[in-house]
Amino acid sequence: MINLGILISGRGSNMEAILRAIEMSKIKDVVPRVVISNKPNAPGLQKAAKMGVSTKVVYNSARGWEYDKEIVSVLRDHLVNQQNGLICLAGYMRIISPEFINLFKGRILNVHPSLLPAFPGLHAQKQALEYGVKVSGCTVHFVDVGVDTGPIVAQRTIEVEDHDTEETLSNRILMQEHELYIECINRFAQGRLSTLGRRVCIKSC
Amino acid sequence: MINLGILISGRGSNMEAILRAIEMSKIKDVVPRVVISNKPNAPGLQKAAKMGVSTKVVYNSARGWEYDKEIVSVLRDHLVNQQNGLICLAGYMRIISPEFINLFKGRILNVHPSLLPAFPGLHAQKQALEYGVKVSGCTVHFVDVGVDTGPIVAQRTIEVEDHDTEETLSNRILMQEHELYIECINRFAQGRLSTLGRRVCIKSC
Repeated sequence: MINLGILISGRGSNMEAILRAIEMSKIKDVVPRVVISNKPNAPGLQKAAKMGVSTKVVYNSARGWEYDKEIVSVLRDHLVNQQNGLICLAGYMRIISPEFINLFKGRILNVHPSLLPAFPGLHAQKQALEYGVKVSGCTVHFVDVGVDTGPIVAQRTIEVEDHDTEETLSNRILMQEHELYIECINRFAQGRLSTLGRRVCIKSC
Repeated sequence: MINLGILISGRGSNMEAILRAIEMSKIKDVVPRVVISNKPNAPGLQKAAKMGVSTKVVYNSARGWEYDKEIVSVLRDHLVNQQNGLICLAGYMRIISPEFINLFKGRILNVHPSLLPAFPGLHAQKQALEYGVKVSGCTVHFVDVGVDTGPIVAQRTIEVEDHDTEETLSNRILMQEHELYIECINRFAQGRLSTLGRRVCIKSC
């Protein structure tokens, strides 16, 4: 069994999709242990609590590893550790320190609303529209010390329509994010992801 | 009718696909007027000649606009002008000068073997494999003064497989390049492309 911790900062729509998928057994062998927010008022906290998952706010002025070691401590208190833990970032708007990343190397996933390496960072959908791409999508990747630069686990594409706005594009991508994230968590839980350098391969069952 | 000039440097596989599509009326209202190479031994030259298209080599040590004005002169001699000309780059391995681009603004197309803005420049497929993306593809774009930075007309995706090599990936992308380029030339010839800033829209028929 994999013990899952989810880090959020806002509404946690990917968090909600993951928790529902676990509830409905669309994700197997994964137990959601804790949802942690760096913002006290993140609406996702209430949703998680309603779904019966422990929640915790880590809100203070510490920086870098000073802050992250409190997160790690909460994760460990909830059995999310280096042996059988998985940490999913779901709209977590904080840069994670190298110490945290190295401690949980290969066990932190993030989803990003573009086909990385195109449009990393904030407002990826707006960046994509302004660039004028005809195809965008989303990426699930392992987190490394860069911003949205870690090894890619999976990607899904969507077509950008001429009439798309940031909102319509974001909504369509978000639906794909939910499905893709669930797929990737399952693969992780089944032990089917192997990483060679930057390339993540999927082992067949 | 659109008068087409194609610039090549090598085998001209996209050139061949375009010329065949015109022959088979898969591209309409476009007359191939001339194929120009900057390399005397480009194998594409013979292919073009066999298909009954005029060919020309512009091979000398001139640089930038000094060189390009010879290209422009050849194009004009073959009726490829700013009124009803279209210039397609097909593996043309030379940077085009701003003067040439401005003269034929919105009339020069290129195809690139990645989902731009990811992996511009040389060896795009190798770059994609080394990055570890799960999706790549190709892009047809108008040429501007940057390298592979012009407004995007269309993009197609292909999945990157775990066992892909640079060669297998390049081959699959190339098949998509052929089809996409043909589609875009048709849209151009039908007057269906309108550009607003960086966004290229397709007008319905």
